[in-house]
Amino acid sequence: MDIRRDRIERVQAGMREQGLVAIVVLNHDDYRYLFGVDRTQPRAVVPVEGPPTIIAFAGEEPEIRASLAADGVGDGDVLLFGSVGGQIHEVVGLLREVVARVGAPVGGLPKVGVQMWFDTPAFLIELLRKVNPGIEVVSSDPVMDPLRMTKDEGELALMVEAQRVAGIGMDRARELLRPGVTAHEIATEVTYALMKAGAARTSTPIYVTFGIETCMLHGRLSPKPLQRGELAVIDLTPQVEGYCANLARTFVLGAPDGQQHALLDAYAEVIPAVRAAMQPGATVADLDAVVGTVLARHGLAEYHVNGIGHGLGLRFEETPASTIIPPHRNVPLRDGMTMTIGHTVLAIPGLGGVRHEDVYRVTTTGGRILLPYPVDPVIET
Amino acid sequence: MDIRRDRIERVQAGMREQGLVAIVVLNHDDYRYLFGVDRTQPRAVVPVEGPPTIIAFAGEEPEIRASLAADGVGDGDVLLFGSVGGQIHEVVGLLREVVARVGAPVGGLPKVGVQMWFDTPAFLIELLRKVNPGIEVVSSDPVMDPLRMTKDEGELALMVEAQRVAGIGMDRARELLRPGVTAHEIATEVTYALMKAGAARTSTPIYVTFGIETCMLHGRLSPKPLQRGELAVIDLTPQVEGYCANLARTFVLGAPDGQQHALLDAYAEVIPAVRAAMQPGATVADLDAVVGTVLARHGLAEYHVNGIGHGLGLRFEETPASTIIPPHRNVPLRDGMTMTIGHTVLAIPGLGGVRHEDVYRVTTTGGRILLPYPVDPVIET
Repeated sequence: MDIRRDRIERVQAGMREQGLVAIVVLNHDDYRYLFGVDRTQPRAVVPVEGPPTIIAFAGEEPEIRASLAADGVGDGDVLLFGSVGGQIHEVVGLLREVVARVGAPVGGLPKVGVQMWFDTPAFLIELLRKVNPGIEVVSSDPVMDPLRMTKDEGELALMVEAQRVAGIGMDRARELLRPGVTAHEIATEVTYALMKAGAARTSTPIYVTFGIETCMLHGRLSPKPLQRGELAVIDLTPQVEGYCANLARTFVLGAPDGQQHALLDAYAEVIPAVRAAMQPGATVADLDAVVGTVLARHGLAEYHVNGIGHGLGLRFEETPASTIIPPHRNVPLRDGMTMTIGHTVLAIPGLGGVRHEDVYRVTTTGGRILLPYPVDPVIET
Repeated sequence: MDIRRDRIERVQAGMREQGLVAIVVLNHDDYRYLFGVDRTQPRAVVPVEGPPTIIAFAGEEPEIRASLAADGVGDGDVLLFGSVGGQIHEVVGLLREVVARVGAPVGGLPKVGVQMWFDTPAFLIELLRKVNPGIEVVSSDPVMDPLRMTKDEGELALMVEAQRVAGIGMDRARELLRPGVTAHEIATEVTYALMKAGAARTSTPIYVTFGIETCMLHGRLSPKPLQRGELAVIDLTPQVEGYCANLARTFVLGAPDGQQHALLDAYAEVIPAVRAAMQPGATVADLDAVVGTVLARHGLAEYHVNGIGHGLGLRFEETPASTIIPPHRNVPLRDGMTMTIGHTVLAIPGLGGVRHEDVYRVTTTGGRILLPYPVDPVIET
């Protein structure tokens, strides 16, 4: 392990500010952020004061203690469980202990923070509330977000590496685009290329859509093989040491027709316009307004979809994640924040859609791309 | 699409029995079970009476209508949204309409069912409750479980195929086991083999653990290369058309030492004993008792962990999922149910662990394996 005491201290300062007595860690990204490694079932409790407690399966004790000892962490910091019931029991006991130690707030229940995003199951939160009637379970976002939004140099280096890996995958995808290729064939070869290049996994499945299916908001593996004249959208999300990349490109198999040209031309103008606007203080709503203006100039305003970008880092969608959590549309961007631009598809229903997505760093002079990758949509056949 | 009207009718009958006015579908497995296809963002509402409504992004309208028309489904069955806000608005409106049509129960709020497992995010349930104060959101398990637990012939054929694919991956893994190989290298080659054999994806990441890390309850990719004399556990979970496989094997690089032998011998006796007990009416608690008895005979009782098997099908862990939901320990097995056996590791902390996991069908004469795969742990070096 590589326990990040600096980060834990900042989390605890945030907890004091927000009035939390503890944060229960249930997610890979928070666990990795605080403990420098990942586990398949990441479980820990960070109290507002004192060292965090790792919760692990009894059979893993020697392995986890060896790992902690390498970090100079003492004995009281691991709670072991032998079953699901035991695990819940340990968490309940631990939270009671923390509350007894730091005290409950005047006139209210002690608040315990938990990350509540896509990977936090509803049943686990319900259970946590049920077995801990004396606490109030709240979102840990107000504590974690300010810390996680901006990335330090080490984090940026891993994110650049993840984008490099994504580029290797996209090179492979481009090579395979020919009449008759299937989305599954591309996904198979690209997954292999990504993993060979060092990706541990992908944040989402690889999306490869062809033809009319390029209109999809999220993508999937299109069931029908690619045909001459069709658009193809490839969306890649490899992870390197937990850090997420996102690279999407649109290709057309052969010379683009008029409408394909119109979409590609408009998108090519959207990106630099948004980049220029990616400055501290701007919001996703502001960036979407820029997209709207460009599209209106191209006579494509009616096809505009809100949500041109989202934060990413150790989680594939981080604040601002405006297509998941509408209030994030109004979160001001910060210097040093990492975001994708090109999240939403510009699609004419029934015809096809276009998007080119990369990751940028917000700076006072606009978005700086982490690692450029060519936009070169036409595949000669 | 391939809308399964027969299944929808059975779901509606279950809703009448359980007093639900609607089920909101938010998960891939339910969506595929009812509509025969998957979408990246599966969203639908099944009312207790009348046809289901698919909820889809506006840009996808032509594609989804073409797909529905091929199924002979009319116009009223798709609700389109243009943004997250729009999507929520549509669901709220739709649920109000259903309640107005079918009426609220006497003396209580109308109940709406939602699947609440690992893939149902807590924040989505909180949002659903907040925007629908006039309904009670409950688990859809009491309706869906009785239908999903047992598999029809078509489902079984896909599950056998998924196990066949898993076997191809395990063959590849076995070939690669040699001193110095990394878990990542094995995961890369095995993922490629699985996808080439037809897997769309895997339910979990591929787990490859070596040495002391074979004690892990869940597995991961071990960071250190494999050494002579170490145990290696490989756990594969490919999916074919949404149906999940599960195949885990333990290998030892070279001649097993005394303790490795003891673990392998005990596990080899656990499996047939549990298989014999996998009859309708038995529970996972009963099966765990069988495991405990065998392990006690081998002097390994203290290393027993509850949860020898779990249901699987379109979801990787289905009822009974006793290591997730403790009351599932007491759910009686049914004839035709599909379950894994070999879920928990038999591990001596600090030394290593062993497990061999396959999928079985519960029958009146005991568990029948879907597709046999050799247990052949010793790798000559």
